[in-house]
Amino acid sequence: PDAVYFPGIPAIPFKPDAGPNETMVYKTYNPKQIVNGRSMEDWLRYSICFWHTFRGTGADPFGFPTLIRPWDDGSDSLANAKRRMRAGFEFFSKLGVKYWAFHDRDIAPEGANLSESNKNLDVLVDLAEELQKKTGVKLLWATCNLFAHPRYMNGASTNPDVHVLAYGAAQVKKGLEIAKRLGAENFVFWGGREGYHSLLNTNVRRELDHMAAFFKMAVAYKKKIGFTGTLLIEPKPKEPTRHQYDYDAMTVIAFLKNYGLDKEFKLNIEPNHTTLAGHCYEHDVTVAAAYGLLGSIDSNTGSPDLGWDTDQFPMDIKNTTAVMKVVLEQGGIQPGGLNFDCKVRRESIELMDMFIAHIGAMDAFARGLLCAAKILAEGVITKQVAERYSSFDSGIGARVEKGEATFEELEKFVLENGEPKRISGRQEHYESMINYYV
Amino acid sequence: PDAVYFPGIPAIPFKPDAGPNETMVYKTYNPKQIVNGRSMEDWLRYSICFWHTFRGTGADPFGFPTLIRPWDDGSDSLANAKRRMRAGFEFFSKLGVKYWAFHDRDIAPEGANLSESNKNLDVLVDLAEELQKKTGVKLLWATCNLFAHPRYMNGASTNPDVHVLAYGAAQVKKGLEIAKRLGAENFVFWGGREGYHSLLNTNVRRELDHMAAFFKMAVAYKKKIGFTGTLLIEPKPKEPTRHQYDYDAMTVIAFLKNYGLDKEFKLNIEPNHTTLAGHCYEHDVTVAAAYGLLGSIDSNTGSPDLGWDTDQFPMDIKNTTAVMKVVLEQGGIQPGGLNFDCKVRRESIELMDMFIAHIGAMDAFARGLLCAAKILAEGVITKQVAERYSSFDSGIGARVEKGEATFEELEKFVLENGEPKRISGRQEHYESMINYYV
Amino acid sequence: PDAVYFPGIPAIPFKPDAGPNETMVYKTYNPKQIVNGRSMEDWLRYSICFWHTFRGTGADPFGFPTLIRPWDDGSDSLANAKRRMRAGFEFFSKLGVKYWAFHDRDIAPEGANLSESNKNLDVLVDLAEELQKKTGVKLLWATCNLFAHPRYMNGASTNPDVHVLAYGAAQVKKGLEIAKRLGAENFVFWGGREGYHSLLNTNVRRELDHMAAFFKMAVAYKKKIGFTGTLLIEPKPKEPTRHQYDYDAMTVIAFLKNYGLDKEFKLNIEPNHTTLAGHCYEHDVTVAAAYGLLGSIDSNTGSPDLGWDTDQFPMDIKNTTAVMKVVLEQGGIQPGGLNFDCKVRRESIELMDMFIAHIGAMDAFARGLLCAAKILAEGVITKQVAERYSSFDSGIGARVEKGEATFEELEKFVLENGEPKRISGRQEHYESMINYYV
Amino acid sequence: PDAVYFPGIPAIPFKPDAGPNETMVYKTYNPKQIVNGRSMEDWLRYSICFWHTFRGTGADPFGFPTLIRPWDDGSDSLANAKRRMRAGFEFFSKLGVKYWAFHDRDIAPEGANLSESNKNLDVLVDLAEELQKKTGVKLLWATCNLFAHPRYMNGASTNPDVHVLAYGAAQVKKGLEIAKRLGAENFVFWGGREGYHSLLNTNVRRELDHMAAFFKMAVAYKKKIGFTGTLLIEPKPKEPTRHQYDYDAMTVIAFLKNYGLDKEFKLNIEPNHTTLAGHCYEHDVTVAAAYGLLGSIDSNTGSPDLGWDTDQFPMDIKNTTAVMKVVLEQGGIQPGGLNFDCKVRRESIELMDMFIAHIGAMDAFARGLLCAAKILAEGVITKQVAERYSSFDSGIGARVEKGEATFEELEKFVLENGEPKRISGRQEHYESMINYYV
Repeated sequence: PDAVYFPGIPAIPFKPDAGPNETMVYKTYNPKQIVNGRSMEDWLRYSICFWHTFRGTGADPFGFPTLIRPWDDGSDSLANAKRRMRAGFEFFSKLGVKYWAFHDRDIAPEGANLSESNKNLDVLVDLAEELQKKTGVKLLWATCNLFAHPRYMNGASTNPDVHVLAYGAAQVKKGLEIAKRLGAENFVFWGGREGYHSLLNTNVRRELDHMAAFFKMAVAYKKKIGFTGTLLIEPKPKEPTRHQYDYDAMTVIAFLKNYGLDKEFKLNIEPNHTTLAGHCYEHDVTVAAAYGLLGSIDSNTGSPDLGWDTDQFPMDIKNTTAVMKVVLEQGGIQPGGLNFDCKVRRESIELMDMFIAHIGAMDAFARGLLCAAKILAEGVITKQVAERYSSFDSGIGARVEKGEATFEELEKFVLENGEPKRISGRQEHYESMINYYV
Repeated sequence: PDAVYFPGIPAIPFKPDAGPNETMVYKTYNPKQIVNGRSMEDWLRYSICFWHTFRGTGADPFGFPTLIRPWDDGSDSLANAKRRMRAGFEFFSKLGVKYWAFHDRDIAPEGANLSESNKNLDVLVDLAEELQKKTGVKLLWATCNLFAHPRYMNGASTNPDVHVLAYGAAQVKKGLEIAKRLGAENFVFWGGREGYHSLLNTNVRRELDHMAAFFKMAVAYKKKIGFTGTLLIEPKPKEPTRHQYDYDAMTVIAFLKNYGLDKEFKLNIEPNHTTLAGHCYEHDVTVAAAYGLLGSIDSNTGSPDLGWDTDQFPMDIKNTTAVMKVVLEQGGIQPGGLNFDCKVRRESIELMDMFIAHIGAMDAFARGLLCAAKILAEGVITKQVAERYSSFDSGIGARVEKGEATFEELEKFVLENGEPKRISGRQEHYESMINYYV
Repeated sequence: PDAVYFPGIPAIPFKPDAGPNETMVYKTYNPKQIVNGRSMEDWLRYSICFWHTFRGTGADPFGFPTLIRPWDDGSDSLANAKRRMRAGFEFFSKLGVKYWAFHDRDIAPEGANLSESNKNLDVLVDLAEELQKKTGVKLLWATCNLFAHPRYMNGASTNPDVHVLAYGAAQVKKGLEIAKRLGAENFVFWGGREGYHSLLNTNVRRELDHMAAFFKMAVAYKKKIGFTGTLLIEPKPKEPTRHQYDYDAMTVIAFLKNYGLDKEFKLNIEPNHTTLAGHCYEHDVTVAAAYGLLGSIDSNTGSPDLGWDTDQFPMDIKNTTAVMKVVLEQGGIQPGGLNFDCKVRRESIELMDMFIAHIGAMDAFARGLLCAAKILAEGVITKQVAERYSSFDSGIGARVEKGEATFEELEKFVLENGEPKRISGRQEHYESMINYYV
Repeated sequence: PDAVYFPGIPAIPFKPDAGPNETMVYKTYNPKQIVNGRSMEDWLRYSICFWHTFRGTGADPFGFPTLIRPWDDGSDSLANAKRRMRAGFEFFSKLGVKYWAFHDRDIAPEGANLSESNKNLDVLVDLAEELQKKTGVKLLWATCNLFAHPRYMNGASTNPDVHVLAYGAAQVKKGLEIAKRLGAENFVFWGGREGYHSLLNTNVRRELDHMAAFFKMAVAYKKKIGFTGTLLIEPKPKEPTRHQYDYDAMTVIAFLKNYGLDKEFKLNIEPNHTTLAGHCYEHDVTVAAAYGLLGSIDSNTGSPDLGWDTDQFPMDIKNTTAVMKVVLEQGGIQPGGLNFDCKVRRESIELMDMFIAHIGAMDAFARGLLCAAKILAEGVITKQVAERYSSFDSGIGARVEKGEATFEELEKFVLENGEPKRISGRQEHYESMINYYV
């Protein structure tokens, strides 16, 4: 019964000496291997998303579905939903991944009205509970899909019509309840339709106020029902909306601070969103961590030559090293994880492609972990960076950091000490050092 | 003596019936004309920047200077600096512009050390004071150039070396003093080198902390000396630095909020920076205003097909209308203004091109003002936008806005009222209405 | 029977004095009005595309359909296809547009196999023929959809499997036949899947050779059946494919020249594709015309802040003026036209929005035509441009143009005449002149 | 005398076991090591550019020079020019690089007129000849700087004034003469100012005609004097010009084909230009090779998050592997090479940074060579790609490739064989295989 949906595919083995053509084995990811004092699976906390991997069809704006799954009859029936979920847990288990993530509407069909939708959801949550127990796979996070249904076309919490906002509220209410029931370690908000297509018909401030009110109600309800997972906001600059209010990490932080919500939320950073916002791959991960707000990561990648979200599997070791270095430096990503918000290419139509893609990405992050761990363990680079800032460790630098210095005092320092010595930034030296490790 | 530097060029007249080839007259800008109850010049508050217009040489990364000005011998002498300033005031006066703006190092040469630089500055500030008095031209804002000198190559307030930070502090100390003396209505910070080229050699959090400490000292010193102008931060996403910490309006707001500085600063928005950050032209102006933080505008434009700051003269009426609509709606931009942070193209080498470019942009903004004023006066569009949000004016919508609603209550509302009606966003209708006005 | 599908909506009238809120009337477009010697409709040759306007659902990668049309039951039946077509011709007629355009699979459902698909097509072509005759609406161009069906996921003419190429060939064979039957004035190729997602699995040269072979067969078949319409290739840089072989106008020209196909094809330029390729709006229109290869225009627009094809209705008068200036200068766009390859926003769900969008765009192009015509008729700008190049009209300049000059002769000229005089490019002057007209 | 300019720095040794901090040694580049039958230095043919490395100052549009070189007094004297050149050859020799490249105006100061400039050039060419002989370093290519001097601000060969075109011609005439004298293996044209800033003042077709006429004269003169090096055009999409006529590889090919110049020129591809044109890193290298026109490579990199040319040292092994795979597949890059058109960061102010940067890039390309060579030698990937296209090796596929097939025949094939089988593109599998090698 363990091989109903992926017959002939075994639990993916660890085979470090495999050849190039063997893409159905782990060459680096070895969950129990200890790295810098903790197991690989503890650092990496991989999660698989249900939407792309079990609801993605390969359709794109110019083409029809290509991904035909034997268990999926294309219907909106509960039976079909259950088969999908069972296939999902078989898939998670065969990969040896310990977490999953979903939107409410991925796992259960939307009904004719809210009550029916909630009832459908309950059926599938029952099954999820059973399968979680049976397989040991846990829920990294749940989220509500407040963007796909036409009612949300003009936004959910930022919709000009309070009736739609109310609908979103009802949906998140239920979402928090099932998150609690399934032991979700986090709950995510992604505001795909919270933004504008045109400023001509939009009152930006009023919409932002409504979004904040919505989040405050979510916090209140979370506390009321005793859900203890972390609330996360996932920034994205644009697409489907022309401008999303959660543009990037700093934009979300501005919003949270402005409405006094920064103690209640952290960020779920997706690097493909980061690069679409005009930053380098690891920027938002770094910035969120710098402000103590890095909650979880949707680990994927885009193509730098494309202007939309391709949600590709991350395969670049330099990128995975950079991300894992931040994670290691902040002592892990718990209770967040590395959720693969990725989809196989539309042309990768075989079931095996689903495995190959995840395995390749997991190995890429495992290699990144090993590189980053080595960088930190050897300390050559980190020591040189610390040295760069050492003038702030004592004397007038320390006074600046403590907020004790004044302009008058600093002017005096310059009048006495003259022109600063010019110090090379040595960027190419750092790049060469990184190439030693990667 | 009024025509020493631009002989043969008269005060630019208003000539509404001029033909296409007559680009040395105002066709729309008529300073005393009353628009929605105030004079054009009161709404528009034009300012000319000294750096581009009197220090720009036409050099670019691939080419040598092209803009040869008869009064400028290319030397760093005080005499040359004085001639430039006199030419500037003749230029401002002939255009009929009432404000100017400068960096400390634009108007006076950097000396062999800080004391000498400050002494040079005093000489030119004396002259500026005299010329301001004589011409009635006022200082919209002053700022310090903390990015061009090699000492600042790794940042000023975010430099890893406190000695450089101290130098920047000393420079801003003096800058605030001369701003006060010249009656500057604002003081601007643009952090061209505050950011990173590579995360490999950078401690982001420590740099941000230093930047905040620097701003706090600036606030303290401003208060101490009784300078009453508004402090403004000017966002820019990148260039020269790969990532600038003041990426866009929301990023700056996040920073200010995080360090408790949001009561002390407003924003100076430059649309060419806004578009480089991936937003539409009027986005940051709109967002800054939405948060009550729109302090001033560096009115220019870029080319949407280019990835760097071209600082072109704004000539698009749709853009100027969008900006002026925000300004009108917030009741004016005082004590800020519309500073033309623009440069003539490197190939526009004639003195007349300086005039033509400013006149064209001033007319473009005057047309934008007239369009926006008409839109607001007629109220057709604004009324339709207000109507879109009317469900929040009473009932459950008003409860949401007041923070009184709960998820439970909203769920009940949905269970009772069912699926929301779908309401067209009517974007093309709004676009057509705008085309009526523009 | 003329108002079956859009009851209550009359033929759109010309009402030049309409107010801002009246977006269901033409304010500028007056088909019979004479402009520079020809009627507006002769210069503008508007065409409406069937795919967006009658097959678009409002679905996007993050959301379900929103555009519910009363005549469309969502089925793939022939009856449904016929209703859609009848609605289309009512729509074209009410707008007073004289041309339409379609893909084979837009108008008729794909069958279980090629024969069935062709049979379906014949049924709808019969109806189209009847409706064309009845309404006087003509076919600007037909095209084959070689990108939506999963069989084409890896390309049609560039598919690694010749079986798929053969399928595409069979489809285009039929496409040319129906184009002939319906009197299409052109036939378009858009290679949405001809390109690559990854160079790792791609043999670029072999794919380009196959594409050329495919086009050569198309030319041969066109001649064989006596179809006299122009063959057009429509460039697009990317999306859905990461890189499309028909990147932009010059890329297509390179391809055509390389395979000796440049006498057999012209270009169908879509400005939203032009800007996605990194050019300014009118670049590809200008370049194609410069090489005598501008065949037709898919008149739409994108958002410069977005990296994907939004196919918005063109509403910017500066853009439409620039395009119409090229069209006027080349003496018209015949046998091509201005096909609105545009879709209403997903949120513009009312039937009226379909009209408003087309009317707004038609008025925008009509305004562009009037501006461009005035610019050319007055000749102020064109004369100044001609003057810029006048040194090539005689003497050594004329020798260069005729290919008679040599490096030795030009060196001698420089040795005798010394340094060239520097001449201002006067860009801002030109921009100001354009603002006079727009 | 061998260590006059870089005292204390030895010839860079090969030290494969060096640690991360040892960035002044080669860890992979071992010139005489045999890879796939030829020496590393034969495959890689590194070249150092004189302009960035010996004329770059670190100035940028927002900052003054930072790179102070002890041998450079900043003057335009011939003595200074000679010191620079001697420093150059010491640098090339210590790195063990066998080629260099220069612009005419890099090596010798522009004089008061053409004759004087040519005389200056002769002096430095004498020295270059002597140093080439002494060190064994050869000239990969020469080029003329037709973009920095103000006379070229509106273009050289595309200038509206024939006088400027003539000046450019005279300069290239001399450039070809010195290229011949110094045994240059190629001669490069980069049209930095050949393009437009605004279409309003530009006659595109006339400018392109002039550019073609210019190139034809260059070909004629090259043949006349018996210069046997390859003529190369270097594409760049934009910067400094808004649009450059040599946008990318395919655009240049279109131009060459259109004017019958494609037998006389090849392409010099710079990946930083390729990515600025919206392509992936190796796209233009791949496309140029596909058309048999890849002549040489300016090996550098940019930042995908930046919209301008940063000319960084290439440090990414995936990129260098992709490029070297193309070079290996076409049997080498002779007579071209890998010219480092790179500059140290403005903040990398130490002499050592010059070495570290080049060493890091050379090692990165050497690693790329080893990876690509292994990929090709093992043949796992190439065999799978060949298999993808095998349907074209015989039968109807072969008939298509030979140009023998017809639409009728292909239709018949489909009617007999039905729907094609769907075949996975397996992109993630290929990406995983690449990760095995890199």
